Amino acid sequence: MKGRLYGVGVGPGDPELLTVKALRLIQTLPVLAYPAPETGESFARKIVARWLSPAHREIALPFPMRPGPPAEAVYERAAERLAAELDRGFDVACLCQGDPLFYGTFAHLLPRLAGRYEVEIVPGVSSLGAAFAAAALSLATGEETLLVIPATLAEKALEARLAAADGAVILKLGRHLAKVRHVLSRLSRLERAIYVERASLVEARVMPLAELGGDEAPYFSLALVPRGRTD
Amino acid sequence: MKGRLYGVGVGPGDPELLTVKALRLIQTLPVLAYPAPETGESFARKIVARWLSPAHREIALPFPMRPGPPAEAVYERAAERLAAELDRGFDVACLCQGDPLFYGTFAHLLPRLAGRYEVEIVPGVSSLGAAFAAAALSLATGEETLLVIPATLAEKALEARLAAADGAVILKLGRHLAKVRHVLSRLSRLERAIYVERASLVEARVMPLAELGGDEAPYFSLALVPRGRTD
Repeated sequence: MKGRLYGVGVGPGDPELLTVKALRLIQTLPVLAYPAPETGESFARKIVARWLSPAHREIALPFPMRPGPPAEAVYERAAERLAAELDRGFDVACLCQGDPLFYGTFAHLLPRLAGRYEVEIVPGVSSLGAAFAAAALSLATGEETLLVIPATLAEKALEARLAAADGAVILKLGRHLAKVRHVLSRLSRLERAIYVERASLVEARVMPLAELGGDEAPYFSLALVPRGRTD
Repeated sequence: MKGRLYGVGVGPGDPELLTVKALRLIQTLPVLAYPAPETGESFARKIVARWLSPAHREIALPFPMRPGPPAEAVYERAAERLAAELDRGFDVACLCQGDPLFYGTFAHLLPRLAGRYEVEIVPGVSSLGAAFAAAALSLATGEETLLVIPATLAEKALEARLAAADGAVILKLGRHLAKVRHVLSRLSRLERAIYVERASLVEARVMPLAELGGDEAPYFSLALVPRGRTD
């Protein structure tokens, strides 16, 4: 009998933002898997560290931290590592920072495993909700639309999409900070944009994007862009 | 000394999708407020019902269930009801279904109270994450953008926005189901759209939108629209 795979959202960083369900599964499932960089700590593991016990078997899924998306082979190897456990009959929780299917790794593992195994997805608090809360700002009310857009897009595409958007959330600022600043400045939307870093953690930072220096930001940072004044 | 206001997301419906932090606050704060229809049960209250005790003082904030957005006066009265408690020194948890600032009531209460009282927002699992999980489908991966759009928009605006979007989530289908179906059909995006109702609850329904009959849907329903095949 094959094991069952759980894609478990562990929230944006504050361990208290785990759901009751995620906590129950983590405390009862025998195998916990999580994405991990080649060196250093897995962020998903760190979030749940206080609830880990020697009874857990842990599987670090290697995701090299390099610019650009991981190669297909990286997802393939991770999926096969999970499949090996499931084939042996173990239920596995795959821990995902934030929400499993909101710009997360699990969205790439799911299509590789869904047909072969029973999969249950446990949604989590996303970076979006955490950023709104940290900034005490909502871009998503009433009849307004909200665009979620990765900063990794080419500059022209980024500008065209943002020009047509009401409120927008720009994810994955990282090495793309200077580009994003230029685009927002040209659209006259820089001055009201809010920068949010590591939302929900004690070291969180919230400040006007225009006041943030430098050309790079941490990977776990995003910009909240209110709708333009004139549209 | 004034009380402190907590905007507490209680998730999409399954009580196990409360966060550990929301649960702690609900179990320790003396006053719990929640939006409630004129007749019938408050959905936010129902989600946390198993943790309510006689020690709680409960405040139902009346939100008439009528077509269209509530009048400003409705928000004003709710904010003043909370202010009265805070002025008396009570800490208050305002319970919000889903995430407090993702298309929720709290986004309208926050600007009325933020300058006058200390406010802390506790993000929750949104209807978005719950719907992705229920459908085991992600529209938000890699370099794709995601548009969140309320079905309440006028037909032309809805069509123009969706025509330019990659993946999209159409919220608040309710009385707007027929309009949404027409728009998606004209854009050749109906056949791949997924209808999700009451995600995370036992009575959840997930099905192709094209197979859903009728002109109306429950308020707690949405459509997941994958990106077009050709763009």
